[in-house]
Amino acid sequence: MAVTRSGPRVNFAAPRGFAKTFKSKLKETLFPDDPFGGFRNEKPARKSFKTLQYFVPVFEWFPKYNFSKFKFDLLAGITITSLAIPQGISYAKLANLPPIIGLYSSFIPPIIYAVFGSSKHLAVGTVAACSLLIAESIGEKVNVKENPDLYLHLIFTATFFTGIFQTGLGFLRLGILVDFLSHSTITGFMNGTAVIICLQQMKGMLGLKHFTSKTDVVHVLKAILHNRKEVGELKRGINPLSLKYLNFDPEYLPVTIKAGVVTGLVAMAEGIAIARSFAIMKNEQIDGNKEMVAFGFMNILGSFTSCYLTTGPFSKTAVNFNSGCKSQMSNFVMAICMMLVLLFLAPIFKYTPLVVLSAIIMSAMIGLINYNEIIHLFKVDKFDFCICMAACLGVSFLTMETGLILSVGLAMLRALLYVARPATCKLGKIPNSELYRDTEQYPDATGVSGILALQIGSPIYFANSNYIRERTLRWIRDEESLSDSKSNTVEHVLLDLSGATAIDMTGIETLMEIRRILTARDIKFGIVNPRIEVMDKLALAHLVDIIGKDSVYLSIDEAVEACRFSLETAKQDDAAS
Amino acid sequence: MAVTRSGPRVNFAAPRGFAKTFKSKLKETLFPDDPFGGFRNEKPARKSFKTLQYFVPVFEWFPKYNFSKFKFDLLAGITITSLAIPQGISYAKLANLPPIIGLYSSFIPPIIYAVFGSSKHLAVGTVAACSLLIAESIGEKVNVKENPDLYLHLIFTATFFTGIFQTGLGFLRLGILVDFLSHSTITGFMNGTAVIICLQQMKGMLGLKHFTSKTDVVHVLKAILHNRKEVGELKRGINPLSLKYLNFDPEYLPVTIKAGVVTGLVAMAEGIAIARSFAIMKNEQIDGNKEMVAFGFMNILGSFTSCYLTTGPFSKTAVNFNSGCKSQMSNFVMAICMMLVLLFLAPIFKYTPLVVLSAIIMSAMIGLINYNEIIHLFKVDKFDFCICMAACLGVSFLTMETGLILSVGLAMLRALLYVARPATCKLGKIPNSELYRDTEQYPDATGVSGILALQIGSPIYFANSNYIRERTLRWIRDEESLSDSKSNTVEHVLLDLSGATAIDMTGIETLMEIRRILTARDIKFGIVNPRIEVMDKLALAHLVDIIGKDSVYLSIDEAVEACRFSLETAKQDDAAS
Repeated sequence: MAVTRSGPRVNFAAPRGFAKTFKSKLKETLFPDDPFGGFRNEKPARKSFKTLQYFVPVFEWFPKYNFSKFKFDLLAGITITSLAIPQGISYAKLANLPPIIGLYSSFIPPIIYAVFGSSKHLAVGTVAACSLLIAESIGEKVNVKENPDLYLHLIFTATFFTGIFQTGLGFLRLGILVDFLSHSTITGFMNGTAVIICLQQMKGMLGLKHFTSKTDVVHVLKAILHNRKEVGELKRGINPLSLKYLNFDPEYLPVTIKAGVVTGLVAMAEGIAIARSFAIMKNEQIDGNKEMVAFGFMNILGSFTSCYLTTGPFSKTAVNFNSGCKSQMSNFVMAICMMLVLLFLAPIFKYTPLVVLSAIIMSAMIGLINYNEIIHLFKVDKFDFCICMAACLGVSFLTMETGLILSVGLAMLRALLYVARPATCKLGKIPNSELYRDTEQYPDATGVSGILALQIGSPIYFANSNYIRERTLRWIRDEESLSDSKSNTVEHVLLDLSGATAIDMTGIETLMEIRRILTARDIKFGIVNPRIEVMDKLALAHLVDIIGKDSVYLSIDEAVEACRFSLETAKQDDAAS
Repeated sequence: MAVTRSGPRVNFAAPRGFAKTFKSKLKETLFPDDPFGGFRNEKPARKSFKTLQYFVPVFEWFPKYNFSKFKFDLLAGITITSLAIPQGISYAKLANLPPIIGLYSSFIPPIIYAVFGSSKHLAVGTVAACSLLIAESIGEKVNVKENPDLYLHLIFTATFFTGIFQTGLGFLRLGILVDFLSHSTITGFMNGTAVIICLQQMKGMLGLKHFTSKTDVVHVLKAILHNRKEVGELKRGINPLSLKYLNFDPEYLPVTIKAGVVTGLVAMAEGIAIARSFAIMKNEQIDGNKEMVAFGFMNILGSFTSCYLTTGPFSKTAVNFNSGCKSQMSNFVMAICMMLVLLFLAPIFKYTPLVVLSAIIMSAMIGLINYNEIIHLFKVDKFDFCICMAACLGVSFLTMETGLILSVGLAMLRALLYVARPATCKLGKIPNSELYRDTEQYPDATGVSGILALQIGSPIYFANSNYIRERTLRWIRDEESLSDSKSNTVEHVLLDLSGATAIDMTGIETLMEIRRILTARDIKFGIVNPRIEVMDKLALAHLVDIIGKDSVYLSIDEAVEACRFSLETAKQDDAAS
């Protein structure tokens, strides 16, 4: 009954060594963008200069910088400064901070970003959502009205922890964490925050004095209905040092660390997403890990110099981009302009009316509300819509943190369901071709009776191995219930592993078990096209020896032909006997 | 430049409705074994009887039961009773409970299992690891020596919560939770527990009196080195009611619920795994969710009748199987024998020497220590080895719970890494065939210069979409750095989506983004063989309209041929101009 096969064969070469696969996996996990790939073969001196350029991008772009670029950056820098002043004041008010802190935050951080940042278009500044989030987190512990100094110091401390967290993640190349904030979560979070901030601005627009510090819709609407101008003083002078104010009192440590980490994560996700979007428009690339380090330095040094959390806000970056900025220099120009403002003009802004500030914030926020995106989500993917609404409604009606956690939790649940219940399908041959495809998708694809070809599209491992076994057995039951006569029972089961990118010990045991069950029922078991990662493991676990090299095929077509041959031989044997 | 293609085409039919896909996904998630599939087309009366049979298996097997089967079950039942008595007493001592509780636990629960259980071979009883785990959890809160009654009552309460938890999971069809305890975790946990229990038994073997209640290696060895016989009284009579002892005092609620849930999960995983292993040997099937409900009822009713946590222990089940049991009746026989023992013979077992009990436990435990399995894990899969060792060393040197959490955490981390960093590969054509395979795995497979075919083997979604974009761009960079002359730049990128079982909104955005980046570089983008779930989403998101139906191919071979044609046309155009 041995089938002789010609043509290309499965590669049964010895498995790759552990060191090799481990190194390659580690590299894929932490350096997916292969940052040093470009200068691997350079001379040592050049290599170390390139490495320095990689870590401190100013060394890369400044030597090529010229006056014609500077003209554009000067214009862009002045333009974003004119936006940075009212925005800085407004957002500082959102965070319940003295307005001058908002201006300070547009002086030191942009300088740092100009040195360490890798995006040409990102304009650094404070953002509305994170201002609100940090105020809510710290406000839970310390009442800003009763103890404004402590509140301010804790905000600096939280910013410090944000910086440490972001720098740490960047150095550890853990950009992967940001990947777990999905598009739908961000959409929902932004919409929910925009609604809340707009409602809060009713305070300024309507000239209300007594207001709620709560951030959910119900509380804010209540406060608007039940109630009917102060502008903080702006002192001349650049950022005073705030290093001595950092408060590491164990009583406040949990709340500052938590606030720092949560806002840091959100700020980072927002900043990196924005930097990426603009880079893509110009067909450039952004290294998320490098951006994290730059954001981290910004926030650490910012917390030493009376700044609070900064990242890359959408509105400022869009204005920077549209003003034609050519490099990180525009951030430096903004910093210089802001320094001049702080030294000479700050007191003027004392007279900015609250109504104007509120109007600025509201117009920015209304731009963030995006019904169409949510409707699009509903049409294309109901689960994504739920993830988005969990963030949006959670932020609106509960707290910002609850909304985020709910939404990320749902997204993770979905990720785990993908891995625990991978799609499997029955393959059939498309007429007039050698292609085997899903019979549900291609209804005219037909199988050979007696041969059941199944495709598994997922790593096979502990989280789904029980499911894969049950599902395989059910496919066999279904196939047998379809056929009416006894002669049509399944005699060969072929598992197409093309889509199985990995396998673990539990997965290997499961394949062995499936084979054992099938053998007990006189069904032959074959596997088709195992990928390199799977083949390595199967060889190490001696599974290939157990099921036999003759039962490992390179393509479904080849496997079906081989099985059909053995079916016919068996029939002839039957007929002969 | 339009390419006319003949032969089979991609199915661009309208996407399946939401209701249909949702129903099918829900079914796959909760009913992967399709339990009602067998009698979907029966008459109503027959259908409801079949459903009753499904939920209460005794109605299925008892009508077919006969005396010849009973002979085997009687023998098996008597045999396992002789094992149940010393084991019950020993394990009750492990849990710091009066020995009689161990005997009670082999009376009521087996009767319940005989009615609701679906495994023919599982023998019900207490297990060593869970006895120790529950003692450790409750012992943290209440000292058994100072307050033995409260301790006992809390154990009953924890057992009650185990029952509620297991029944709930079973009814909600959440067998999926058990899937997250991997083979490696269980191996490590069992080995670690066996070591700890053996060490603890030194107490009995060496006749020590003062001992430690801690369960880690260091404490136990210290206690053995620093120290150098009591047997509890066994009263005649069957289980007294313990319903009134259930303690729902809010002070103890967190600890009893936690103990109940953690031991319930471990007991369930162990019991179901064992039932499955033996069913497989006989080529039968076990429904995990049904087993959970049976275990849950066992523990709820057990907690009302002075029993503590029971499940399907390995040793007892193995003996039951080898004694030739034919049905769940052997559990019923054991219950009757145990009733007779409780009514008439209990006081005799007062004189069982501690040394004998310790020896029984140790011999069972030494059988569980499995070096070969751990060595095998090390050889085949280093990450699985780490998961196993985390459980083994965690249980041995820290606490049982810490060990479990560490190990499950590592396993989940791996699961998330699988989804966050899916394997991608470059495809090449195997000589003398139409097959495209990984060029790393099949080094003689070659591509067509100018056409880059990539395979993605994973759902494309938020957790990996950034990675997939970066990786795709890196493949293009690598490909371009390989070719020396300018003419060899990549002109076509083909993404083989055969292995992508699903896509979400973030994934769709990523594909759009990749296309946008490639278009900006004058590279054409095509996708190959999207599966039905992906095709539905792509159609709903209008991605197919955007990239054009001509850029969606059914097979890599077809796609490459089409691209090659356009490459040649372009060259001819160049030559002509």
